[in-house]
Amino acid sequence: MNEEKLGRLEPVFYPKSIAVIGASPDERKYGSGYLHALVLSGYQGGIYAVNRVSGTCHGVHIYPSLNSIPNPVDFVIVAVPVASVLEVLDDCAAKGVKVVQFFTAGFRETGSEAGRSLETEMAKRAQQGGFRIIGPNCIGVYNPAVKIPYGQMEMVGEAGSVAFISQSGGHGGRLIGIGLDRGIKFSKVVSFGNACDLDCVDYLEYLAVDPQTKLIGAYLEGIQRGKRFLELVRETVATKPLIVWKGGRTETGAEAAASHTGSLASSYAVWKAALEQAGALTVESLEEMVDTIIALEHMGASAGRRVAIVSGLTGGGGGDSVSSTDTFVSIGLEVPRFTSSTLSILETLLPSVGSILRNPLDIGSVGANLDTLRRTMDLVFADPGIDVVIVQQHIDMLLHSLSLEQVHAINDVFIETWQAQSKPLAVVSPAWAAVTEGLEVESKLQSNHIPVYRNLEGAARGIANTVRYNERLKASTIA
Amino acid sequence: MNEEKLGRLEPVFYPKSIAVIGASPDERKYGSGYLHALVLSGYQGGIYAVNRVSGTCHGVHIYPSLNSIPNPVDFVIVAVPVASVLEVLDDCAAKGVKVVQFFTAGFRETGSEAGRSLETEMAKRAQQGGFRIIGPNCIGVYNPAVKIPYGQMEMVGEAGSVAFISQSGGHGGRLIGIGLDRGIKFSKVVSFGNACDLDCVDYLEYLAVDPQTKLIGAYLEGIQRGKRFLELVRETVATKPLIVWKGGRTETGAEAAASHTGSLASSYAVWKAALEQAGALTVESLEEMVDTIIALEHMGASAGRRVAIVSGLTGGGGGDSVSSTDTFVSIGLEVPRFTSSTLSILETLLPSVGSILRNPLDIGSVGANLDTLRRTMDLVFADPGIDVVIVQQHIDMLLHSLSLEQVHAINDVFIETWQAQSKPLAVVSPAWAAVTEGLEVESKLQSNHIPVYRNLEGAARGIANTVRYNERLKASTIA
Repeated sequence: MNEEKLGRLEPVFYPKSIAVIGASPDERKYGSGYLHALVLSGYQGGIYAVNRVSGTCHGVHIYPSLNSIPNPVDFVIVAVPVASVLEVLDDCAAKGVKVVQFFTAGFRETGSEAGRSLETEMAKRAQQGGFRIIGPNCIGVYNPAVKIPYGQMEMVGEAGSVAFISQSGGHGGRLIGIGLDRGIKFSKVVSFGNACDLDCVDYLEYLAVDPQTKLIGAYLEGIQRGKRFLELVRETVATKPLIVWKGGRTETGAEAAASHTGSLASSYAVWKAALEQAGALTVESLEEMVDTIIALEHMGASAGRRVAIVSGLTGGGGGDSVSSTDTFVSIGLEVPRFTSSTLSILETLLPSVGSILRNPLDIGSVGANLDTLRRTMDLVFADPGIDVVIVQQHIDMLLHSLSLEQVHAINDVFIETWQAQSKPLAVVSPAWAAVTEGLEVESKLQSNHIPVYRNLEGAARGIANTVRYNERLKASTIA
Repeated sequence: MNEEKLGRLEPVFYPKSIAVIGASPDERKYGSGYLHALVLSGYQGGIYAVNRVSGTCHGVHIYPSLNSIPNPVDFVIVAVPVASVLEVLDDCAAKGVKVVQFFTAGFRETGSEAGRSLETEMAKRAQQGGFRIIGPNCIGVYNPAVKIPYGQMEMVGEAGSVAFISQSGGHGGRLIGIGLDRGIKFSKVVSFGNACDLDCVDYLEYLAVDPQTKLIGAYLEGIQRGKRFLELVRETVATKPLIVWKGGRTETGAEAAASHTGSLASSYAVWKAALEQAGALTVESLEEMVDTIIALEHMGASAGRRVAIVSGLTGGGGGDSVSSTDTFVSIGLEVPRFTSSTLSILETLLPSVGSILRNPLDIGSVGANLDTLRRTMDLVFADPGIDVVIVQQHIDMLLHSLSLEQVHAINDVFIETWQAQSKPLAVVSPAWAAVTEGLEVESKLQSNHIPVYRNLEGAARGIANTVRYNERLKASTIA
């Protein structure tokens, strides 16, 4: 059963050869950009260029037609004007291609009847020709495990276990870009635009059983085959979390979606309720998608509602204690009191003046004393009333009073004390862009699987969503 | 009247000489840090160190007592343990000091009766001695115009017209730090902690009439003299906007505030309603404070509700069009249709495939064509149904397909077309930390008075708050 589902989209994500129709001696053309990225990415399959204009494109020989390529072609990327698409599909059928992806736009999203019926015809020819279509009006597939780059972005990150399906090519690219920055590693990404053939149900069916994928995000403008999609959400979330960001949640936004991917959005409130009821986590921005992916990936099943906050590593943590509490509590998390045993040991560790001996814990300027910091972190992790620990770290401030080595040493304490126990830890570290050394510290935390957030709101909403998923899963397992 | 108000706090913000009690030959001490920052900042007044331990501190001679300083001292910074504070105050009275600021903590915020009555006694001695107290438990004053640094942060930014009063020293420092990064320039900042003498009313009375201050932000945990404060808010907002971030808006947050500055917070809902009714803009995080300051400062009275959005400078703007609309509309702004005249000219400028000819305008890959971009921007600015223009710029993506020079040239078009007319423009430019060239582009926009936001949410809430202020002001002027 799973084998059959995986086999169906195997050539979408693991093509053995790729041809770009529209790659041209003019290297500024979109098709040429796709080819260039494939050449640079390290993709090991066959790479072919097709164009009526002969010559080479980024060092690759240009064939005059698909048919003249001497070897089999699994996957075709099409970047030619809309007028030629039916002809291209006939060539693909003749060649025995398995998947055709259209970067080409100008279909249903233009609002014209001609665009709509052209898509219907394309889907028909795909069925007759025994191949599948991704798009049109999309960027296509990203699969870091086999070095398939995302559109013209030649940089392929490390492979991981997060999948993302997106009706917007731009949002797909932005998520990949943020992922490189914030430590999200992808199993597969696909931008599928107007979805004239393969739609969100097809992609989700595959990813739900894909052993490389542990967590799925989706940006959807219209949802195709709604009833089946909701069933599938229910099946999927039993084994992996699914986060859905629905574009067009306002009326004016829905009009924009119609012009973007020809999607007819029904009421957002109805969709949101249906998706949440089926077990998906709904989010409302790219940032919330990122925050939630990071929390789910790093904290997973061990995240709970009761948060301890440690701030003020080198002073100035009082205001942070107040605002972090406001932020976490107002999103529905708890910042409970420490147990009396924790408190009494804290009193022996930290001075009563200049620190605040409660949760949030403002440890004051003793934060730079590594031994005190280590014992404090151990104690906070061990408190039985705490599920998750948050450290608020202002790297710019730390680097003002400490050396980079000292800041690294402090962060090593976070890593080591976290590794010695089982509760999740997240670090909130704004890292103002000007402080590049801060990024080094951040990336060491990330590579040790400790999530880093740039602001409290992000951490709070990521954790709150993760807790919501966990609580729901527990309730359904009990039921 | 204004002269009297300004005169009252003149020595708080413009002291002619400053002594640091607690500056020591041990340069790691807090007092030494204060002195060091004063020495480095370029402050032109007298700088004195006082300590029982003789020697020098950062090259400054240490006097054994205040009284032994041969010259007058206007302002004293106190960084000695709480046990010595009354003695220090007597010395200050004897010396004829005008202002005493206590970094020292361990008063009312400890929750003890002793702490509370010590503060009462301090206020009494200040009155008897003819001087004022800032704090205790605070960082104190920042005045870039006369190079007074903020606590131990020696870096003093350019002087500007934004004032900030903060019960949290940490939040004050963070705002100053973010300001350096995001182009906010300050007239005055004061962190005032427990406010045993000078309180939020005193500071606001001064700033309301301070000619250097055009906009005031406040972080408050407890609000002292509530009735007078609300009256003062009403007076202030008639001439300059006031943004209030109230800490302790949740019950648990209010408990944290009590441990931080000894503030007893009443119900947040009540305060929020009263502050808004008096004309203050209430915000709920440091980020929202920053976003609102930036919008108010740069857009001011010309910001209105009707927003045009331009995205997709080099492709991939379709998803952005949808999500930006959702973000702006759901916060209460409008993304109206362009007039038919604007639309008909757009059709001649931009291709119908690959761009979206409506508001939000996804200009597609023609964004790199400077002439088309210029004409498009002129057209959008000129549309009579539009009040504010937003450009969504993904610098990391732009720099992938264009050179830094080309990206600068695109941004020069934004600057020039904006300068040629009167509507506000904001650029939303996430600038992932990895792309340092992006920061150059950002800072050129900022130095040309075009606000830059790192995300849509920030731009939307900043603009929405500014519009709220403008609409309220207009209503009260008419009434």
